[in-house]
Amino acid sequence: LRARRGRKPGKGGLRLGIGDDAAIFRPKPGFESVLTSDLLIENVHFTLGHCSPWELGAKAVAASLSDVASMGGLPRAYLVSLAIPRRKPLNRHFFKSLYDGMEAWAGAFGACLAGGDTTATSGPLVIDVMMLGEVESGRALLRSGARPGDLVCCTGTLGDSAAGLAALQGRLKKSTAQAAALRAVIQRHRLPSPRCLAGRFLLTKRLAHACIDVSDGLSSELHHLARESGVAIDIDAGALPLSRSLQELSPRALDWALCGGEDYELLFTAPPAKLEYLRRHFSPAADCRLSFIGKVKKSAKPQVRIKRDGAWKALQDNGYEHAIF
Amino acid sequence: LRARRGRKPGKGGLRLGIGDDAAIFRPKPGFESVLTSDLLIENVHFTLGHCSPWELGAKAVAASLSDVASMGGLPRAYLVSLAIPRRKPLNRHFFKSLYDGMEAWAGAFGACLAGGDTTATSGPLVIDVMMLGEVESGRALLRSGARPGDLVCCTGTLGDSAAGLAALQGRLKKSTAQAAALRAVIQRHRLPSPRCLAGRFLLTKRLAHACIDVSDGLSSELHHLARESGVAIDIDAGALPLSRSLQELSPRALDWALCGGEDYELLFTAPPAKLEYLRRHFSPAADCRLSFIGKVKKSAKPQVRIKRDGAWKALQDNGYEHAIF
Repeated sequence: LRARRGRKPGKGGLRLGIGDDAAIFRPKPGFESVLTSDLLIENVHFTLGHCSPWELGAKAVAASLSDVASMGGLPRAYLVSLAIPRRKPLNRHFFKSLYDGMEAWAGAFGACLAGGDTTATSGPLVIDVMMLGEVESGRALLRSGARPGDLVCCTGTLGDSAAGLAALQGRLKKSTAQAAALRAVIQRHRLPSPRCLAGRFLLTKRLAHACIDVSDGLSSELHHLARESGVAIDIDAGALPLSRSLQELSPRALDWALCGGEDYELLFTAPPAKLEYLRRHFSPAADCRLSFIGKVKKSAKPQVRIKRDGAWKALQDNGYEHAIF
Repeated sequence: LRARRGRKPGKGGLRLGIGDDAAIFRPKPGFESVLTSDLLIENVHFTLGHCSPWELGAKAVAASLSDVASMGGLPRAYLVSLAIPRRKPLNRHFFKSLYDGMEAWAGAFGACLAGGDTTATSGPLVIDVMMLGEVESGRALLRSGARPGDLVCCTGTLGDSAAGLAALQGRLKKSTAQAAALRAVIQRHRLPSPRCLAGRFLLTKRLAHACIDVSDGLSSELHHLARESGVAIDIDAGALPLSRSLQELSPRALDWALCGGEDYELLFTAPPAKLEYLRRHFSPAADCRLSFIGKVKKSAKPQVRIKRDGAWKALQDNGYEHAIF
């Protein structure tokens, strides 16, 4: 590991990497630090047979990158803790590939490997990534900023990753005609792409009042937004962004979108005055689709409603829960 | 957890704690960030029967606090990742106590709980602590700064924690007359006290050229210093700081001191001109003993020698390795 990164100062503020008691990072004046961590456990969050070690590395950093993206921040440096069982295929090649994946994916979004800890374990493989990002002081996009009248917006498409996982686990029936759609959703599950560009665009252009990343399913994140902002949210089921692949694979595409997990899209609220600007400039700048899926309403108690087949009903807070196999 | 810390900004730069996608920390102008993590695995780094959950929490943050101390930094904020097996005694009371221990111990040294991740696991209990500290820009104490002629200094006493672990595991023969000594070394193992005051005193008074914390045994850390600084180090076995308890318990006290683990003392090198100042002011300021254990020498290749019973010999790099039970 040390040979990879050495002590040479990296870009983006890292002054000292692996090789001392701690890493040293020089904060940019006028910026605050954003701190987040994501813990991945074998057979809970990933299965070795479902992805290559490189993809696993990329996936391990993606969750933290997405958290930084949702604050509108720039990923800068990360620490990796590994608990390693002594068994196949967890050899030197496996870990070289794992770190290659982490460094490639985090590096693409601007973050350097700064250190961490490794140890042996009698249990499953454990990967914990802690990410430090930076954001202009006082400007971070929070869950608590949504205001009545705001548009509710969502990047990309929802549900693909959960459907991809179901396909890998043999829980999704498919015909050979659907091979391409299947590959697409599996790829979404294996290699999530955090919306760092989108988060930065929203922050720098002051387009969002509140933002959260969709990691545990849209319905769960909508409830977080409503609770933290003290508002009601009305969603139009017909406006939810579903990929062509997902619709081809399942008649229940909408359920995947509402309750899936690991989408790593951004869910944000924007003042209605920004509608035209978002329509025109968001997709080219953020390199992803944008959907307007609902509205923020004033409410005495936080709640989320959904219009489905012409009727309004309360949306349950039933996000995705990682299962113990 | 959230009820404990809420979103209220903590002291020491934490602007936003648990409850959003990430925590926000405002760096102090003129300071750099210090980043470190320590991973503890059940039955590798700790055994539930050997300590209370409160002590386990304190121990879990101590390793990271010690890393920040060794850089001369101030601990500020930390993230905790927990992988939790579903079995006794890992209930709500256990985790309340665990977090109480972390918060009390880290809080005593100035660090606030900022966030983290929790998940279920089929394996052992895993605790990963990632600590962010601050240090005056460009002033951090590194492993690489030792210069020929420097004094080699060590805080506190060495080997007690390893002997305490051996006692808990029944590997240390004892008589009833030694009950007090036994309690003392066991207490050192259960509740390590990081040398944050010492690190700050060394940095602010510009007393040290290089510094490292003794977490994996003195001999191993001496080799780190020698390698990173490109020097030779000569140690006098007779000068190593051994507690009365350890000497009472074992005729091999010196071996415990050289190869033990989890001492969390500071090992540093200081210019000889600072000898008198250190003798007079270090202990009152840092609230711990100080020993002068050797000298830094010029050398073509890094090496460590020890004078034992009047004869010099090479000191092997055989630090403590955590065992899989």
